[in-house]
Amino acid sequence: MNKPYAIGIDLGGTNLRVALVSRDNEIIEKIKKPTSDDIVASVIRSAEGIFSDEVAGIGIGVAGLIDRENSRVFTSPNLQAVEKVDLVKELKERFSVPVYIENDANAAALGEMRAGAGRDFSSFVLFTLGTGIGGGIVYNRKLLNVSAEIGHMSINADGEKCSCGNYGCLESYAAGRAILSNAVSLLETGRESLLKVQCGGNFYKLTAEDINKAALDGDNLAREILKTAGRHLGIGIANVINIISPEAIILSGGLTGAWDIYVQEAIKEASKRTLKELFERVRILPSLLSDDAGIIGSAGLVF
Amino acid sequence: MNKPYAIGIDLGGTNLRVALVSRDNEIIEKIKKPTSDDIVASVIRSAEGIFSDEVAGIGIGVAGLIDRENSRVFTSPNLQAVEKVDLVKELKERFSVPVYIENDANAAALGEMRAGAGRDFSSFVLFTLGTGIGGGIVYNRKLLNVSAEIGHMSINADGEKCSCGNYGCLESYAAGRAILSNAVSLLETGRESLLKVQCGGNFYKLTAEDINKAALDGDNLAREILKTAGRHLGIGIANVINIISPEAIILSGGLTGAWDIYVQEAIKEASKRTLKELFERVRILPSLLSDDAGIIGSAGLVF
Repeated sequence: MNKPYAIGIDLGGTNLRVALVSRDNEIIEKIKKPTSDDIVASVIRSAEGIFSDEVAGIGIGVAGLIDRENSRVFTSPNLQAVEKVDLVKELKERFSVPVYIENDANAAALGEMRAGAGRDFSSFVLFTLGTGIGGGIVYNRKLLNVSAEIGHMSINADGEKCSCGNYGCLESYAAGRAILSNAVSLLETGRESLLKVQCGGNFYKLTAEDINKAALDGDNLAREILKTAGRHLGIGIANVINIISPEAIILSGGLTGAWDIYVQEAIKEASKRTLKELFERVRILPSLLSDDAGIIGSAGLVF
Repeated sequence: MNKPYAIGIDLGGTNLRVALVSRDNEIIEKIKKPTSDDIVASVIRSAEGIFSDEVAGIGIGVAGLIDRENSRVFTSPNLQAVEKVDLVKELKERFSVPVYIENDANAAALGEMRAGAGRDFSSFVLFTLGTGIGGGIVYNRKLLNVSAEIGHMSINADGEKCSCGNYGCLESYAAGRAILSNAVSLLETGRESLLKVQCGGNFYKLTAEDINKAALDGDNLAREILKTAGRHLGIGIANVINIISPEAIILSGGLTGAWDIYVQEAIKEASKRTLKELFERVRILPSLLSDDAGIIGSAGLVF
């Protein structure tokens, strides 16, 4: 008989989420804690708390580039400790169930397909919009086992060098890190803005959320920054639609809180740049599961 | 019993190719003629010449954006006559066999998968490098039914407007049209070059082949033009690898004649820009079928 549950693990740069998930994508129990340096011990301890005979397997989504052949992580800029361990092997040894590993954005795409904004689409591309930009591609109701490193597509041949080695990467213009660094640069030129008050003069304390809040309060500088980032996101979206012609683009992650300005600008720009017939047929919409997409999708790797 | 043959049709901007192809991808008979304005009549006449009771179906690859839902062509900038006709319906009515339609570069990718440079790969992306740039994506030994309009990915956010509506499209920098227009611009500034002699002073007579020949003869201007185009092609290749992480990139089309300079420069640039672990695992290699990829692939749509 099919065991009814799987454990889904979402190992991001900041937080570790572990959940017991049913075959129909219900989260039975969920643990969230800060990511620790001793990743293996931390993951095993959390999984032990919810493991039982009824668990069919374990799925892990990791912020990083996945070595599918060896079920390991090639590189994880925001979670380097995971590069040195064999998480799949360790979990298999401890729990004696099948263990699967995926990139975290890919896992989130699978989550949205199974239980979120992607339920009604045969094909879609998920963009995760946070400090950086990740992606996952679903085609014919299956997650493509591809890198989907959408954030590291160059949209400016001679742009600045990115830590990945490429130049002018999408995420250098359109993600949280870029938004903050633009805000600091502009504030340092002495421009007036509500943001000055919000951060008490210490520009480095600003968060993307502060910028969104100021923008919604009508602050010109904040609006300008979000629009510039959104315009670039729109270029990335247009490129992805022109290449993959999905039925939908699903946007998730912290930055989609700024739907009104940032995302609307992205949609406007994408509408101008995408092949007309493809844009008319694509839907661009927000994630439904937000932070739970990763654990539901990771568990979904098992089923 | 399975009928042993299919008719493969490759409908490009310049030439119409029609062939009788066996299930094991052998070309039994092949017709090539200039594309005519009366596309339906021309295609039907060519197919009649090789149709028989042993033909299982007909596959067509068309230079254009395909409306998969309605088995028609949305747009075909280089073959506008095909937008107004229902080729699939007309062929079905005339021959009473199943008829399939695909984009020509997608069909060529299927051809390379079945009988060419893609035979040994589970996943690859084909680039067709001619006047423009097209693409086709094979994943898990299946052609993805996606647009794959790789040439219309923006690699310069603020680049020149392309006829597709996007700005800074890959093909505006890296394809034949761009190579020729760069050559003309540079020659018009009075720069010395073998090309001047080759075209007898009429720059508009130049072909991409002339430029390649001059480059191989050591002409600096021709080398510079091909290297610039190649460098941009490398950016497109890097973007595609970062997103789709295929096992191989297969390059086809007239411009791959310039493998030594243009393609080598592209590979060099891609090696700098692609995520290291992905570049180490990808192979970049030339098409094996060249012009036959389209007819073999179109026939392959039937089998």
